[in-house]
Amino acid sequence: MDADTTRQRIDAAWRERYGQGAAPEALPWNDTIALLMRHHSVRAYKPDPVPEGTLPLLVAAAQSAATSSNMQTWSVVAVSDPGTRAKLAAIAANQKHVEQCPLFLVFLADLSRAGRIGERIGQPMENLPYFETFLVASIDAALAAQNAVVAAESLGLSTLYIGALRNDPEGVATALGLPPGAMGVFGLCVGYADRDVPAGIRPRLPQAAVFHDERYDAGVDADLLASYDATFEGSRHGGGGSWTDRVRNRLGRISQLAGRDGLKPALRRMGFPLK
Amino acid sequence: MDADTTRQRIDAAWRERYGQGAAPEALPWNDTIALLMRHHSVRAYKPDPVPEGTLPLLVAAAQSAATSSNMQTWSVVAVSDPGTRAKLAAIAANQKHVEQCPLFLVFLADLSRAGRIGERIGQPMENLPYFETFLVASIDAALAAQNAVVAAESLGLSTLYIGALRNDPEGVATALGLPPGAMGVFGLCVGYADRDVPAGIRPRLPQAAVFHDERYDAGVDADLLASYDATFEGSRHGGGGSWTDRVRNRLGRISQLAGRDGLKPALRRMGFPLK
Repeated sequence: MDADTTRQRIDAAWRERYGQGAAPEALPWNDTIALLMRHHSVRAYKPDPVPEGTLPLLVAAAQSAATSSNMQTWSVVAVSDPGTRAKLAAIAANQKHVEQCPLFLVFLADLSRAGRIGERIGQPMENLPYFETFLVASIDAALAAQNAVVAAESLGLSTLYIGALRNDPEGVATALGLPPGAMGVFGLCVGYADRDVPAGIRPRLPQAAVFHDERYDAGVDADLLASYDATFEGSRHGGGGSWTDRVRNRLGRISQLAGRDGLKPALRRMGFPLK
Repeated sequence: MDADTTRQRIDAAWRERYGQGAAPEALPWNDTIALLMRHHSVRAYKPDPVPEGTLPLLVAAAQSAATSSNMQTWSVVAVSDPGTRAKLAAIAANQKHVEQCPLFLVFLADLSRAGRIGERIGQPMENLPYFETFLVASIDAALAAQNAVVAAESLGLSTLYIGALRNDPEGVATALGLPPGAMGVFGLCVGYADRDVPAGIRPRLPQAAVFHDERYDAGVDADLLASYDATFEGSRHGGGGSWTDRVRNRLGRISQLAGRDGLKPALRRMGFPLK
């Protein structure tokens, strides 16, 4: 590809991702970066199955992500059974794509495996009850899942994270037969996007609002957010309203937590004391 | 590339990643997947700087990852100042690469931005104090960071997550001038690997130990772990000892938490009530 074409692609990708501003003059570029930058969530899937071998491939990609001290404190469950899918969709505020996507994965923060090892070797695993260890497991699961997302999208598949499984983590545990010490952190829809349903990139905050040089600068974002609000509101895929309105709606009222205000006591009942 | 060559690459990648077993007969494959599968942590870096434009590129890749309800509850700080690097390295159990790598990023779970929005518009953000919201921010940070890792590695750079910043999150906050409601979840070293220092893939658990079909099966792993222990112990980059020993050492004794047993009270002091 000649330099002019690459530059045009960079500029187009930047415009889509940010909705405003221009890409830096020097910016490394390749097909993997282009793939990352064109990610967007997809909520409507064609019924076509994923290609043979996709599931073990996504698991291998997920396992290739970094994991804290190589502890591998995560697991993944693939759910096909329509009854189980229906239960999970009901937990996730009736998101129909949870039932419709050809491949649905639930990523687990999983301390139960280390617990079983401890039982087998007669070693009390003193660190499992700590908040830190739960956080490690959740981050491990997230890094793994994001690698699976990149792998899936490299194959032309689309994805959607389903955080709403946390509306009822005990319901998820029952549906999937999880042992104590394992928790569904989020779900992931995978499949071919139904192109008849509009979907696309929602512009993100300008870099200056999330990136800080040397030290955090809490003074930068007032002006930036005003221009971002306008950009967001004017974007095809923003979904109406300003970003500030969205954040206010999502974080302003406890009803928007949809039960997740009970996440901590639920986790405690599920074998995570969160010490 | 012809089919035979692709198959050889798949088999080689699988062997490196798992140290045992064979890849499925049908497995989708492309350069991005090959890149993901050959990830390994690097702890020794050449002094060469990263190419111009790398930093905004990594931020753009990170911002392209999914974020819960588009809330974008994370931020990132790039640290060059040698004094600050030294402070962070000291917190991270004196890991020298924190000082030596050409680019060091600290990814933040950042609820402070939403808090500032609330103050500006006079809307109490009732959901910020909840455990769930902290978890969202941590997961957002992890998804973003993993995209940055993939982008960096696609450019021939290597990376290392530094979870040990959580040994003293308040020390990190002081060093970076973080406001209440922002916390360094982990650091990330980025740079060119010093190939004179051995580094490579440590084999992961067999897929059957982390992957579950329809429902969680807690009965599968005893046999699998025995063979994995042998594979791990025999691998060039395992670092000596079995995986079970590693897990026992890391999770068996509170001293191994290196202060992270105090993470929850530290977070409360930092503006995360974790309700």
